[in-house]
Amino acid sequence: MKIKDLPENTLHRLVIYLNVLDALEKKKVDSVSSEELAKRCGVNPAQLRKDLSFVGNLGTKGVGYSVKSLKFSLKKFLGRTEEWNLVVGGLTPLAEYLINNRDLQKEGFYIMSAFDTRPEKIGLIINGVSVYNLDQLSYVTKAIKVHIGIITSEDKPEEYFQAFLRENIRAILNLSSTPLYSENPEVKIENFSFPMALTKLSFFLKNSS
Amino acid sequence: MKIKDLPENTLHRLVIYLNVLDALEKKKVDSVSSEELAKRCGVNPAQLRKDLSFVGNLGTKGVGYSVKSLKFSLKKFLGRTEEWNLVVGGLTPLAEYLINNRDLQKEGFYIMSAFDTRPEKIGLIINGVSVYNLDQLSYVTKAIKVHIGIITSEDKPEEYFQAFLRENIRAILNLSSTPLYSENPEVKIENFSFPMALTKLSFFLKNSS
Repeated sequence: MKIKDLPENTLHRLVIYLNVLDALEKKKVDSVSSEELAKRCGVNPAQLRKDLSFVGNLGTKGVGYSVKSLKFSLKKFLGRTEEWNLVVGGLTPLAEYLINNRDLQKEGFYIMSAFDTRPEKIGLIINGVSVYNLDQLSYVTKAIKVHIGIITSEDKPEEYFQAFLRENIRAILNLSSTPLYSENPEVKIENFSFPMALTKLSFFLKNSS
Repeated sequence: MKIKDLPENTLHRLVIYLNVLDALEKKKVDSVSSEELAKRCGVNPAQLRKDLSFVGNLGTKGVGYSVKSLKFSLKKFLGRTEEWNLVVGGLTPLAEYLINNRDLQKEGFYIMSAFDTRPEKIGLIINGVSVYNLDQLSYVTKAIKVHIGIITSEDKPEEYFQAFLRENIRAILNLSSTPLYSENPEVKIENFSFPMALTKLSFFLKNSS
């Protein structure tokens, strides 16, 4: 299996493991058994061990996993030891929240600039990040390597999407309420919106009790 | 199969279909073929038809699906024709963004109150939403039915989580960077954070090209 063919659900769980380990490290926990880690991640220990076999960190029998070492293996495997340059499409309140959020930078995700098509937004500077007209995107991508595009516009998510693809930005976090897809396997899109997440909960509430 | 045992991936796709149909309706599209709808949702038509068989809206051969009618069937199936009361744990910038976001209300999700443990936050009123001390949660849940708890606190997500569970809030959207789980099948948790979503993209970027 090529690593890029890792099943989506496995990738999702590996990201969970990384974040749970990060929380354990912040609580000064040095080592964790696969049973305890699995429980904290909402999976069973066999699943955890199988998933971690992709990463190649197998722990030590009877001792469990070193939190620090497993976290580092996962970070490396997931591309999180590198730094990534981001641009944001649409200067919405959500975009402003993200631009002002220092935690993203601490995690290696740097928002370099923002784009909009509304004249009153162009030229603003938010927390050091300049807002450009979307038609200037190609100038920015000539000057810096842009790895990830975040779409927050609710009005024209597809316009930002197409502009990002034209500039060969192949990794897209779409936070608009309109899910976006591409048939190009060289493009990866994560679709998330708050109403979408809440709808999974409303389904659960409607069908339980 | 009981509806509550619907596979998680199927639920995820049904939520996508709902949002794509919503976008089509806003564009005044009346009907859509299963091929076109599947393409817009990033699935194949057979998968789409299989998923929609759970919902019981099968479209009309040769005509396709009525956008309005299929959207309504999905909304009803997913519990989105009802209204839901939400509380927020942690008055963070993300919480303020959500409280100020009118789109959630339009979708039937009402943020009723917010909670914090920091004295300087208690008593604030943001966009009509009062901020209470977390230890007053039980008074609020006695006065109104709270369906969903949103956790935005990065400092003590588990404290809000336990408080929500004690008050029998069984549907939780956890937006902190620490994933949370419960072994209780009567509790449903959605874990999302921006770094988690971006990590799936960094993995893709590291392993492609």
